[in-house]
Amino acid sequence: MGEQAPRKRPTIEDVARESGVSRGTVSRVLNGGHWVSPEARSAVEAAIKKTGYRINPHARNLATARANSIAFLLTESHERLFEDPNFSALMRSAAAALAEHDLPLVLLMAGSDAEQRRATEFIMGGHVDGALLVSSHRGREGFLADLVAAEVPIVACGVPLGYERRVGYVAADDLEGARDLVAYLRDHGRRRIATITGPSDTSGGTQRLEAYRLELGDEYDERLVVEGDYSRASGERGMRELLRRGVEFDAVFAANDAMAAGALDVLREAGLRVPEDVAVAGFDDAPIATRVEPALTTMRQPFDRIAREMVRLLLDVIDGQPAARMTMPTELVVRESA
Amino acid sequence: MGEQAPRKRPTIEDVARESGVSRGTVSRVLNGGHWVSPEARSAVEAAIKKTGYRINPHARNLATARANSIAFLLTESHERLFEDPNFSALMRSAAAALAEHDLPLVLLMAGSDAEQRRATEFIMGGHVDGALLVSSHRGREGFLADLVAAEVPIVACGVPLGYERRVGYVAADDLEGARDLVAYLRDHGRRRIATITGPSDTSGGTQRLEAYRLELGDEYDERLVVEGDYSRASGERGMRELLRRGVEFDAVFAANDAMAAGALDVLREAGLRVPEDVAVAGFDDAPIATRVEPALTTMRQPFDRIAREMVRLLLDVIDGQPAARMTMPTELVVRESA
Repeated sequence: MGEQAPRKRPTIEDVARESGVSRGTVSRVLNGGHWVSPEARSAVEAAIKKTGYRINPHARNLATARANSIAFLLTESHERLFEDPNFSALMRSAAAALAEHDLPLVLLMAGSDAEQRRATEFIMGGHVDGALLVSSHRGREGFLADLVAAEVPIVACGVPLGYERRVGYVAADDLEGARDLVAYLRDHGRRRIATITGPSDTSGGTQRLEAYRLELGDEYDERLVVEGDYSRASGERGMRELLRRGVEFDAVFAANDAMAAGALDVLREAGLRVPEDVAVAGFDDAPIATRVEPALTTMRQPFDRIAREMVRLLLDVIDGQPAARMTMPTELVVRESA
Repeated sequence: MGEQAPRKRPTIEDVARESGVSRGTVSRVLNGGHWVSPEARSAVEAAIKKTGYRINPHARNLATARANSIAFLLTESHERLFEDPNFSALMRSAAAALAEHDLPLVLLMAGSDAEQRRATEFIMGGHVDGALLVSSHRGREGFLADLVAAEVPIVACGVPLGYERRVGYVAADDLEGARDLVAYLRDHGRRRIATITGPSDTSGGTQRLEAYRLELGDEYDERLVVEGDYSRASGERGMRELLRRGVEFDAVFAANDAMAAGALDVLREAGLRVPEDVAVAGFDDAPIATRVEPALTTMRQPFDRIAREMVRLLLDVIDGQPAARMTMPTELVVRESA
């Protein structure tokens, strides 16, 4: 997992590498030796001496009695998990990154208050060593207070509002990404750029709108702004509303690809050509971006890198290091729609 | 949770009901009283006396040190979880049924050998009280041996081949369901019925084909049988192959709705009318059944009931009762395609 700082404290990973067994086996030896062969136990004990590994004095009981598993804690409904490909992409990449450390991913759904309470109890019961928190809507982080108070290792996807200093995170750069996308549309001659925003209680919704506003400056016209909810249907509704208002536009920036796909459908119905009459750009580079006609110009969120960095940061926190924060650049993907 | 047998041993549920607290709280009291208020502890202790509850002598250590969580153990790849709506339907219903008992669902993916090993270690570590095993392909139950040997409470979805006597299960009646569907096609005048089967290493694949063969008897013609893999694309391929063979048919029974949808696309391309020229029937009653044109006549698998019964049977096993087996009838849903 990359470079090491000089004179870094030896970690459980170092012991595993030195002894030639898995991280899980090392942890089982440290926890009393269940399910460990005598040979593996000897190898681990020798490696502990050689590396100078010692259990982190700052870490609490959880760290000395490892569960050898990590929660993927998703504060969304079951419906959203299966409808929004961003979540499945993050989960798949997190599982792959954890597998490299021989750790299973344990999915916990925490969409409702009751689910959040049960998930918190499960995590505090020591059944996982830490949690990857994936939450798109603001205000769903309330139960974080209990987990933070109990010093449960957590790394969030996106900025955990109110806990920025206490919880590590990996966030895509929504503001710069959306500014770059709007600038791209302007650089290609578009002068009347509309937007279909994400929900105003998500950071993607507010940050990408803010970027649009900043980039347009004096040209900003609120009649060209409609709010969606990230669903394809809301992209259709948003585009119908823009056409109904009768204010001229030659481009649309939708805050995600699903809404951009809905906008394409309505423009086609209305007899408008994309990109000749109206350029359409999305955000995410989700699978749908290449399934629509014309394929979408969009801003790629590096979900695989985000998930892998979340896992890396979380394992650092579990090993007793302070929580790091990370912002990940997005990448412009130019296709046919703009 | 329905009727109780007379003089049934009091369960943890009875204690929870009597004391007016959640099952989880009762379990925490039994396990030493962490995270329990003094008031709740007194109420639970009084209820234990009143109901005569005692910890099941047959149950092992796991039962006395409850994790208060249940695994949804899925022996499929991440891709299949998100592509096949049957899995999300089962998971959603299982989560809802567990929520009624204040238990969180913990999803463990066990598609690969390494994932199976990690999931087994996690479960044997006592981090869950039992597992709902969801496995569509044969031969993926091998790791069951370890779990069964460790007496981990398990209930399977479908018949767990080789473990029928040791692992409880809830299975849809594939054989009768598919026979009824083929009989329906015959009763409506179809005389040359083709079939696109599921994979031959799944019970749905073999049982539905066996039903088709039994129902057709002497009329069975292997030139009208092609094998699919449950994907929509395989339904398209299967239908192209049937058309290419040039053997006349007036109906097609696809072993799931996704393949039936693929078959519809190819029949339309070929200029054939459904149901006038060719009747098409599916299996599952998945969401896609009503999203295609014409809507599919199909055999509904009662996934909600299956998941709820699995949860009920698993809680019985955890409470020390022997594992029950259950077969669930399917239901014919007649729409426009046949």
